[in-house]
Amino acid sequence: MERRRFLVKAGGALVAAGAAVAVDAPNVIAQPSFNWRLAHSFPPSADILDGGAKRFAKIVEEMTGGRMKIQVFAGGELIPPFGVFDAASQGTLDTFMSASYYWAGKEPASQWFTAMPFGMNAQTQYAWYYHGGGVQLWEETYAPFDLVPRPGISTGHQMGGWFKRKINGMADLKGLKFRIPGLGGKAYAKAGVTVVLTPGGEIFPALERGVIDGTEWVGPHDDTKFGLHKAAKYYYFPGWHEPGTTGEFAFSKKAYDKLPKDFQRILDYAAQATALNGLGEYETKNAIALEKLKAETKGKVEILQFPAEVVRGMRKLAAEVVKEEAEKTPIAKKVHASYTKFQALMSDWADISEAPYHQLERKA
Amino acid sequence: MERRRFLVKAGGALVAAGAAVAVDAPNVIAQPSFNWRLAHSFPPSADILDGGAKRFAKIVEEMTGGRMKIQVFAGGELIPPFGVFDAASQGTLDTFMSASYYWAGKEPASQWFTAMPFGMNAQTQYAWYYHGGGVQLWEETYAPFDLVPRPGISTGHQMGGWFKRKINGMADLKGLKFRIPGLGGKAYAKAGVTVVLTPGGEIFPALERGVIDGTEWVGPHDDTKFGLHKAAKYYYFPGWHEPGTTGEFAFSKKAYDKLPKDFQRILDYAAQATALNGLGEYETKNAIALEKLKAETKGKVEILQFPAEVVRGMRKLAAEVVKEEAEKTPIAKKVHASYTKFQALMSDWADISEAPYHQLERKA
Repeated sequence: MERRRFLVKAGGALVAAGAAVAVDAPNVIAQPSFNWRLAHSFPPSADILDGGAKRFAKIVEEMTGGRMKIQVFAGGELIPPFGVFDAASQGTLDTFMSASYYWAGKEPASQWFTAMPFGMNAQTQYAWYYHGGGVQLWEETYAPFDLVPRPGISTGHQMGGWFKRKINGMADLKGLKFRIPGLGGKAYAKAGVTVVLTPGGEIFPALERGVIDGTEWVGPHDDTKFGLHKAAKYYYFPGWHEPGTTGEFAFSKKAYDKLPKDFQRILDYAAQATALNGLGEYETKNAIALEKLKAETKGKVEILQFPAEVVRGMRKLAAEVVKEEAEKTPIAKKVHASYTKFQALMSDWADISEAPYHQLERKA
Repeated sequence: MERRRFLVKAGGALVAAGAAVAVDAPNVIAQPSFNWRLAHSFPPSADILDGGAKRFAKIVEEMTGGRMKIQVFAGGELIPPFGVFDAASQGTLDTFMSASYYWAGKEPASQWFTAMPFGMNAQTQYAWYYHGGGVQLWEETYAPFDLVPRPGISTGHQMGGWFKRKINGMADLKGLKFRIPGLGGKAYAKAGVTVVLTPGGEIFPALERGVIDGTEWVGPHDDTKFGLHKAAKYYYFPGWHEPGTTGEFAFSKKAYDKLPKDFQRILDYAAQATALNGLGEYETKNAIALEKLKAETKGKVEILQFPAEVVRGMRKLAAEVVKEEAEKTPIAKKVHASYTKFQALMSDWADISEAPYHQLERKA
């Protein structure tokens, strides 16, 4: 072992060399330790997201040989779920995992990095981040907040949500009390829906007692964990309001800048690995939950497609909402332009690749 | 931990000498250097794959702070394109990037890890690797060859290929001279196609001179680089024979076992990061190439969907071929069973998520 011999002999010389260690003796390098705290915005019961944050921490620890440890806190354990952005921005928190559309009030542009109504699906969105300039635009958007963003786990395509009554046309939306946040909610409001923002923990009782007529949440895995299938009969698809919801990791610039370059890159690529793994986990667990839902609720739950009239109507209203958001700030306008152009380009390709693939009979 | 204790002593001296390196001694660790060679199976002109191998090497170098370097060789530069498996298996090559279905002759089971006719698309295949037991089965398949496999870059959905004549039904396939390797080729042979295996570099002249009536290759980006659009008029989709072709990284077990644990994990996660990035690059560049193809060949090239009769007919023949392959070895049978079960589960979910998503009007 060449290396060991070097260490035995070189110890003293190395000491004498002092700070010039790395130059003269590349095999022995000072390895500082870092202990970071990550807070996310989700309840611990959101197992794929909470588990994804923990997987990210584990990956970083493994790749740094234990020299960087990240302690993970679920929403509210250390910081209120929606306090993570400010905490990391101010440098009192090292990093957080969340969804950028929660920060629409700080900068409307942030919404494009999570999901847009009738926008991109997960696969296309990741292509935009890495090959369509998405990450650079996101960095530009977060720079004023001293935050370094990285794409996180995507939930994949979301479901349209749970309704207590059948939706046969746009007229059925009028006066409906529906729980939905964000741009999807703004579009529904234009259709005459009474949009409510029931917090996560109160959705089930509100739906069960008829305080609300319906709600969207995520997809079969998370929705059935909430018990929503026990409180509403009609489960609608597709989730036009969030076709590929992608989460985020964001590092406090202050904390990130203190890291050696190799640790910075380890964080960057750990986020990418966590993203690929997490999307796969969502897809798999949604498929399993859907199978279970079908088996357990035969005749009790109907899984239905939104009628064409509703999709067309909501498409028009959502486009108005998106346009309004894009006009709010110069960076929102810029991000919207990039997103829209990329989506159109990719749609033409999807029309002869992924779209017809999904029309194939794929089961053996 | 003999080594660590020694290092604590040496490290203590180092700190005392004023390097101001770290708070406690374990932070100074011996850092061996590794120089690996990676050979892949593709020509340097396959820019996304060759570039992906180089990105993988760069990521590893960045994350190890330059302590692990991987020199990349394109197909034939160091080792013949299809010699990489044996070289790494015998331990004379550290790692390779290729596609596992090239090794069908060594172990038929390897084919499921790349692509199957009417099989999974890229997104579903990655879910299978990480959450459906795919990686473990792949490791089991490669263990007898002393190789450690990791999922690589997916080309995404491939195109059905270029034809000099229109295909209106199964009858038009009879006697057609078509270049296509693998299981797709075996299925075409059952339909009466004269299947040929023209090597990459000879495809264009063979197609132009009419030695072959058609060929599949990859998708718009790679196909137009070959100039195939100048030699055939009809470009068919979908690529039922390879709906989500995923490449591989494979490490020589001998070389991998010599690495410290943190470097092993860096290789593993570098592969995951390269996969997500590479799929995005394929999607983006295919979309750009398609746009260019349409603009430049107006009226000269027709992009057509295979008629339903052909898709149905090939579906039946491909299922026979896959069944025959699955019966060849016990591990092939086991992998086929896992793959098929996972695909069926995921199809039910895709039917109400990705499939209807692709029917939405997605352009602004």
